[in-house]
Amino acid sequence: MEPIVDTQQRILDSARELIYSRSYADVGVAAICEHAGVKKGSFYHFFPSKRDLTLAVLDSHYLEIKDHLLNQAFANDIPPMARLARFGQLSYEFQKQVLNDTGRVIGCFFGNLASELSTQDEPIRLRIEQIFSNLQSGIRQVLREAIALGEVQDIDVEATAQAMLAYFEGVMLLAKSQNNVEIMGQLFHAMAQIRISPR
Amino acid sequence: MEPIVDTQQRILDSARELIYSRSYADVGVAAICEHAGVKKGSFYHFFPSKRDLTLAVLDSHYLEIKDHLLNQAFANDIPPMARLARFGQLSYEFQKQVLNDTGRVIGCFFGNLASELSTQDEPIRLRIEQIFSNLQSGIRQVLREAIALGEVQDIDVEATAQAMLAYFEGVMLLAKSQNNVEIMGQLFHAMAQIRISPR
Repeated sequence: MEPIVDTQQRILDSARELIYSRSYADVGVAAICEHAGVKKGSFYHFFPSKRDLTLAVLDSHYLEIKDHLLNQAFANDIPPMARLARFGQLSYEFQKQVLNDTGRVIGCFFGNLASELSTQDEPIRLRIEQIFSNLQSGIRQVLREAIALGEVQDIDVEATAQAMLAYFEGVMLLAKSQNNVEIMGQLFHAMAQIRISPR
Repeated sequence: MEPIVDTQQRILDSARELIYSRSYADVGVAAICEHAGVKKGSFYHFFPSKRDLTLAVLDSHYLEIKDHLLNQAFANDIPPMARLARFGQLSYEFQKQVLNDTGRVIGCFFGNLASELSTQDEPIRLRIEQIFSNLQSGIRQVLREAIALGEVQDIDVEATAQAMLAYFEGVMLLAKSQNNVEIMGQLFHAMAQIRISPR
C-alpha cells in the first residue's frame, strides 16, 4: 500500500498540471484521477470536491512560488528596486522553462483562475485575492526599503505595489495571448518605473 | 415569423452576456439558446459551433467597444496623452455600469477569454491576439501624435503601447479578482506614465 502522503501529493500535482495548462472548467475529477493514477474513492477521501482540491492547489502553488521564486527575487543581497527586476527575470525564466516543456506560454496560475472564476466561485476568488495580497505585500516591502534608502520618493506605497502587481499580471496575460514568452523579457523591466503619487 | 437578423443578433447578445459574466466553458449552447429564446436547430443554422459563435461575439464586442468607447476615448479634441486618461476613465465607467447591473466586476471580455482559452483553442487565441493588436494600434497612434507634439520623447513606441495595454489588462484583472471597481479609478491614470526606452 502506498503512503497516503504520496497519493494526496500526486492528486495535487496532477490537478495543478492539468488546470494550469488548460482551465478549471476543462479539467474534471475523472481526468485528474486518471492522470494521478488514483481511484475516485481515494480522491474524495482527500478532497470533498474539485473546489476543495483547487483551494489546496492554490495554496501549494503559492508556497512553491514563495520558496522557489519570491524568496530568491526579494532577497536583500541587492538594492530594493533591483529586486523587482530580478522578480521579473525569474518569472520570465520560469515561463520559458514551461514553454520548453509544454510548447505553450501558460501565464500566471493565480491570474488564470481569477479571470476564469472570480464571478462564479466566491471561495476561490477570495483565496486568490488573499494570494494577490501576499504578492503585493512582497512588493510593498521592497518599496518601503527603497524609500528608506532614498531610491524612491513621494509615492503611495500601497497603490504603487498594487499597480506593479497589475502590470506584472497584464504582461503575463499578453504573453499568454500571443504564446510569446519574449514579451515578458521586453516588458517586465518597466514594472519598477510605475509610481502612484499620494492623493 | 421573426426576421432572421433578430434571431442571429439575439444569439450573439445572449452568448456575450452569459460568457462575459461567467466563462466560456461554463456556458453551453443549450443555455445560450434558452436565454435567447431560440431552438437549437436555429442556433446551428447561424453558427456551426460554439467556437464559431464565440469568434462572432468577439468581433461584435470589439466593434461595439470601438464605436462606443475607443473612438470617443482617442478622439483628437484633447492632447494625445490626455486621451489615454480618458480611455481609462471611460473603461472605469463602463465597468461601474456593469457592476451596478450585475453586482460583479467582470473585467475585460478579451482578457478573460485569452486567459481561459489561449492554450486550448488556437482560432480563438488568434482572434484575440488580433483584437489586442488593434487596441495596441490605437495606443500607438496616440503615442505617435504625442511624440510629434513633444509630449513624449525617446520611447520605443511599439513596446510602450504594448506595455500600456498590458497594464490596462492587469488592472482590469485585479479589479475583477477583488470584485472592486474602484481599483480601476485609482490605478488607470498611471498607464500614461509607462515608458519603454529604445533598445
